[in-house]
Amino acid sequence: MIRVAVVGATGYAGAELVRILSMHPEVELAVLTSRQHAGKRFAAVYPGMETLCELVCEAFDVEQIPNRADIAFLALPHQLPMAIAPNLLAAGVRVVDLSADFRFTSQKRYESAYQPHSAPDVLAQSVYGLSEVYREQIGAADLVGNPGCYPTTVLLPLVPLLRAGLVDADSLVADAKSGVSGAGRSPSLTTHFCEVTESYKPYKVAEHRHNPEMDEVLSREADRPVHVTFVPHLVPMSRGMLTTIYARLDHAASEEAVRDCLRSFYDRAPFVRVCSDQRIPDTRHVRGTNFCDIGVRVDSANNRLILMAAIDNLVKGAAGQAVQNMNLMIGVDETCGLLPSPYPL
Amino acid sequence: MIRVAVVGATGYAGAELVRILSMHPEVELAVLTSRQHAGKRFAAVYPGMETLCELVCEAFDVEQIPNRADIAFLALPHQLPMAIAPNLLAAGVRVVDLSADFRFTSQKRYESAYQPHSAPDVLAQSVYGLSEVYREQIGAADLVGNPGCYPTTVLLPLVPLLRAGLVDADSLVADAKSGVSGAGRSPSLTTHFCEVTESYKPYKVAEHRHNPEMDEVLSREADRPVHVTFVPHLVPMSRGMLTTIYARLDHAASEEAVRDCLRSFYDRAPFVRVCSDQRIPDTRHVRGTNFCDIGVRVDSANNRLILMAAIDNLVKGAAGQAVQNMNLMIGVDETCGLLPSPYPL
Amino acid sequence: MIRVAVVGATGYAGAELVRILSMHPEVELAVLTSRQHAGKRFAAVYPGMETLCELVCEAFDVEQIPNRADIAFLALPHQLPMAIAPNLLAAGVRVVDLSADFRFTSQKRYESAYQPHSAPDVLAQSVYGLSEVYREQIGAADLVGNPGCYPTTVLLPLVPLLRAGLVDADSLVADAKSGVSGAGRSPSLTTHFCEVTESYKPYKVAEHRHNPEMDEVLSREADRPVHVTFVPHLVPMSRGMLTTIYARLDHAASEEAVRDCLRSFYDRAPFVRVCSDQRIPDTRHVRGTNFCDIGVRVDSANNRLILMAAIDNLVKGAAGQAVQNMNLMIGVDETCGLLPSPYPL
Amino acid sequence: MIRVAVVGATGYAGAELVRILSMHPEVELAVLTSRQHAGKRFAAVYPGMETLCELVCEAFDVEQIPNRADIAFLALPHQLPMAIAPNLLAAGVRVVDLSADFRFTSQKRYESAYQPHSAPDVLAQSVYGLSEVYREQIGAADLVGNPGCYPTTVLLPLVPLLRAGLVDADSLVADAKSGVSGAGRSPSLTTHFCEVTESYKPYKVAEHRHNPEMDEVLSREADRPVHVTFVPHLVPMSRGMLTTIYARLDHAASEEAVRDCLRSFYDRAPFVRVCSDQRIPDTRHVRGTNFCDIGVRVDSANNRLILMAAIDNLVKGAAGQAVQNMNLMIGVDETCGLLPSPYPL
Repeated sequence: MIRVAVVGATGYAGAELVRILSMHPEVELAVLTSRQHAGKRFAAVYPGMETLCELVCEAFDVEQIPNRADIAFLALPHQLPMAIAPNLLAAGVRVVDLSADFRFTSQKRYESAYQPHSAPDVLAQSVYGLSEVYREQIGAADLVGNPGCYPTTVLLPLVPLLRAGLVDADSLVADAKSGVSGAGRSPSLTTHFCEVTESYKPYKVAEHRHNPEMDEVLSREADRPVHVTFVPHLVPMSRGMLTTIYARLDHAASEEAVRDCLRSFYDRAPFVRVCSDQRIPDTRHVRGTNFCDIGVRVDSANNRLILMAAIDNLVKGAAGQAVQNMNLMIGVDETCGLLPSPYPL
Repeated sequence: MIRVAVVGATGYAGAELVRILSMHPEVELAVLTSRQHAGKRFAAVYPGMETLCELVCEAFDVEQIPNRADIAFLALPHQLPMAIAPNLLAAGVRVVDLSADFRFTSQKRYESAYQPHSAPDVLAQSVYGLSEVYREQIGAADLVGNPGCYPTTVLLPLVPLLRAGLVDADSLVADAKSGVSGAGRSPSLTTHFCEVTESYKPYKVAEHRHNPEMDEVLSREADRPVHVTFVPHLVPMSRGMLTTIYARLDHAASEEAVRDCLRSFYDRAPFVRVCSDQRIPDTRHVRGTNFCDIGVRVDSANNRLILMAAIDNLVKGAAGQAVQNMNLMIGVDETCGLLPSPYPL
Repeated sequence: MIRVAVVGATGYAGAELVRILSMHPEVELAVLTSRQHAGKRFAAVYPGMETLCELVCEAFDVEQIPNRADIAFLALPHQLPMAIAPNLLAAGVRVVDLSADFRFTSQKRYESAYQPHSAPDVLAQSVYGLSEVYREQIGAADLVGNPGCYPTTVLLPLVPLLRAGLVDADSLVADAKSGVSGAGRSPSLTTHFCEVTESYKPYKVAEHRHNPEMDEVLSREADRPVHVTFVPHLVPMSRGMLTTIYARLDHAASEEAVRDCLRSFYDRAPFVRVCSDQRIPDTRHVRGTNFCDIGVRVDSANNRLILMAAIDNLVKGAAGQAVQNMNLMIGVDETCGLLPSPYPL
Repeated sequence: MIRVAVVGATGYAGAELVRILSMHPEVELAVLTSRQHAGKRFAAVYPGMETLCELVCEAFDVEQIPNRADIAFLALPHQLPMAIAPNLLAAGVRVVDLSADFRFTSQKRYESAYQPHSAPDVLAQSVYGLSEVYREQIGAADLVGNPGCYPTTVLLPLVPLLRAGLVDADSLVADAKSGVSGAGRSPSLTTHFCEVTESYKPYKVAEHRHNPEMDEVLSREADRPVHVTFVPHLVPMSRGMLTTIYARLDHAASEEAVRDCLRSFYDRAPFVRVCSDQRIPDTRHVRGTNFCDIGVRVDSANNRLILMAAIDNLVKGAAGQAVQNMNLMIGVDETCGLLPSPYPL
């Protein structure tokens, strides 16, 4: 059994890690840390876990973790992980970081979107944890920068098509929609029930921090500078994310050709489901799961490709993909602990 | 006092007409018809109206209406109005039709999206009821084809910019999101609470019937064939619509230049609010009102314009704009009966 | 025109006052105060009010109000009004207070539920603002303590029946359900969207502060000590409150006898609608209105009376009843400014 | 491996059975039937199950089932199971019926609430499937009548207290609240999103068919006629049920004494969690699980006991309890296949 620590276990991503890992057959959940709730039973913070998880939250102690855990998940706000990860790695603990701190190849790009990076050497060793695309590097990595939720929905549909030269990289628009849990558990007016319910709005229009993250990967995959126009929106629901992507087809490729390209790329990827022409992705279909459902349509009147990708932002967009990456790192089946059936509603 | 009939008063758009018209100071609500609820008090169907509306729903009787009403609103499924409107007009009743039957200039375009038109001569006399754009023709019209909700959100932001030559008409993408009331009051699996709540999905991708409607107007205004790529989505909320539009700027126009163009166009339009650069439209801000809020952003990295338009789909997208058109037709102030303050939440 | 000040205009109850008063034909909205948003336009805080309200929020200044307003609404947390109201009254400003500070007759009861009262003399002059029950005293009052939302739903159905001796006062149970706006606008984990949506729970079980408030009035009306067992619950919706009351019938009174008693009591009360046996109250039917809908059923198998009362917690439960009280105080029609039709949905 | 058939697999309860059984380690999901979707892949009806369930829905064939299944779950509207179950039993297939057809001991009581019973002999052999209370009889049964969702929330808290003589059986009030999925998957105005969202209402007040079901069990357990006053309400959420029960304490028992009685009764019941005095049940805490959380408070001012019970209406209130009963019938651990961790939100 692999011993696992979840650092920052009481935020939404952390709690989702606890949910998944507490059912994982190859893992012993060994350490949960929480600044805010140190000393409290995890189940007192998330009473749904009463009788299912007896662990007590602890204050983070960098000396302690290496004795008790083989792998640590960091579910913390950015800027904290880059202070912690180097010590953990030095002590032999492998790390999956869910923040932005180790997602970038370019330190400069990271710094333009966030703040100065205090561990550039470690950044240089990290692997971007888009499981289906960088599976091999992830398996060998000691440090994985787990992708942002929005980039996951933009990159999984686009990377195969860019590699195949099917879309015009200058024409990319990503109109993304997220449930409220993406904003985290800290109360704010933005997440106040009365301000969200029966309401729909864009936010951070063309200035969201996930934009440079996706641009970096797309540029690498297209082998030239790519900038997506990216507009996130807030949907009055708790979980779920759906991104609609618009692009010009480079050639007059058919809908079926695009679908074939995706199907071939994701042939052995159990968590990517390329929808038939009968089905359109819906966040409901992936709720609580690690799936990414991808739909394809072509507006033939103007040769414009429409891609739709749906995930659960807390699972494939955070905790689930992190566990998938851990599975790759420890050499067990990629789906291990990640295949509960979704709710029918 | 103008005497008014609402034909199809118990659907959502019809009931919204009753709500607005029952408070309208220049109008006497004279006749309500309903196939399904003929003989029933309107307040028995919508108990919220108890003590506020004492009218009884009647079966539609084309002989009766002209004696009792000066203007008729038709809130019926398409195909019914084209059978009814000619008789009403012939008897001297002016008509505002909320269906698609009289929205098109091109009979052929209508028929390609709907079905054969049985009253092409009458169609030729109708005026498209986009109040702020065709104000003068509407004032003089006997028959107004009230715009679809989606076209309202696409056309109000785009028409001024196309006229001013600011956007590339070949580059238009409209990613639209609607509350569930747009699907009407008839129960279906699509509108079942459990299938909608905590769920988000596209539908009728690049094949919605409002697409040709908006294409026709945009083509006329741009003076050349225009086709928008249009993808509607369903949001788990009851009322509200927000459309995000993407277009290439024809020249490197600034965000402020675009905003000025819109402000100048809507200078004397009380229901169009062009947002300052501090504000992003939100369906909450227009809920229950006849406003259309328009926001503007430019993604300067690739010279792409982002327009956002928010309306209440049942008000500015249906009943409210219909009453606004009636106000223009009867020569009272455009805002008459249409300025209740919105709920703060 | 009566000049009006809203003190605490940017909380939910305050903003609802602004919504209602900005449409009120007998009122000039003269002063809005807000600690948090002083110096900001009200419409910048509630953008839905853009073009409808041009007032700027001010810091509260007790010297200023009397020159500029005849009546002040205090929409502040309890404990603040008892410091402010005496000065306003002394300067000739009549006051409607929406907090608990002036709701009680017994200072001791107030203090056992809240904290020491700093203005007991003024408390002794205040009138409890349950409009339909204490209409005459309210009309003559300079200071009205506007009822809590829960007490409004418990008292309106029970007072007439207690006066008529129809129910056993020892048997009262009130199972109440509220939308989230009752918790106010300050962000907290309790009001976080993700913690509320798709969730239902009791809170402050048998220990809510509205319990002594309703007990005091019921005891007065029954002329002996009455204690209701009161359990509030949180419903995943923004506005609306429905309370289900259980009581033993003192005699084997019929459902219709109970209904008649209520109808007779509320004969000339435009905002209380006693439902026919065909109709059950629903918060939807009163949303955005000042109505209280009351339904009656008898479980004859055990002679138990079931009363159901629905209100909009922000209107009849707060701002609307406050304006109704103002109407009584200034001698205009009770419904003035309070009869917009509700949304059909 | 036990081979299992789900008859009526595409309603909400049936689909929930498929979700749970497809993960159950001791079961082979062998047959799914559906009148409406016969011939269709189950995953085409519930696309969330794509790649997880490859079964095709079949028309029900009473000849076929016995060859292919050892146990059949009937998830059909009442009246259908009493026509089917006798044949299945005769052919050696054990049956768990989720309708009301086999829940009653008294045929007369069943018939007064439903319709004539066509298989009274079989009814006489059935066992009421309240797992924790009738565990032994269920283990030995060939036919289990799975309890209604509302009765489950009323009986689990009350049975131990009635057996212990702690509550006055004449004083029982159950104020129950359900999510919309309890109304099933057939579209209706009652379940239309726009009619439910932001709305709260009672329905079938003191006349719901689950009332005689719970009365029968309570009467048996109290050993005298008991009638609960029962009022169900509809909550704007998909899943979840919470019932608040009011009763007079027979003696002045303390809150802790009541809690101890429940704890002792449910000592070895893994799915009943009696909450400490720090915790109040919340439907969120049991969402997607087979738990029933029970909270206890005493309003000492009038010696009234308040019990709160929360379940997921589709799991402990339907499919989950049915699988729990199957586990008892086939002699595997009661929790088998029923312990996935709930979502943190």
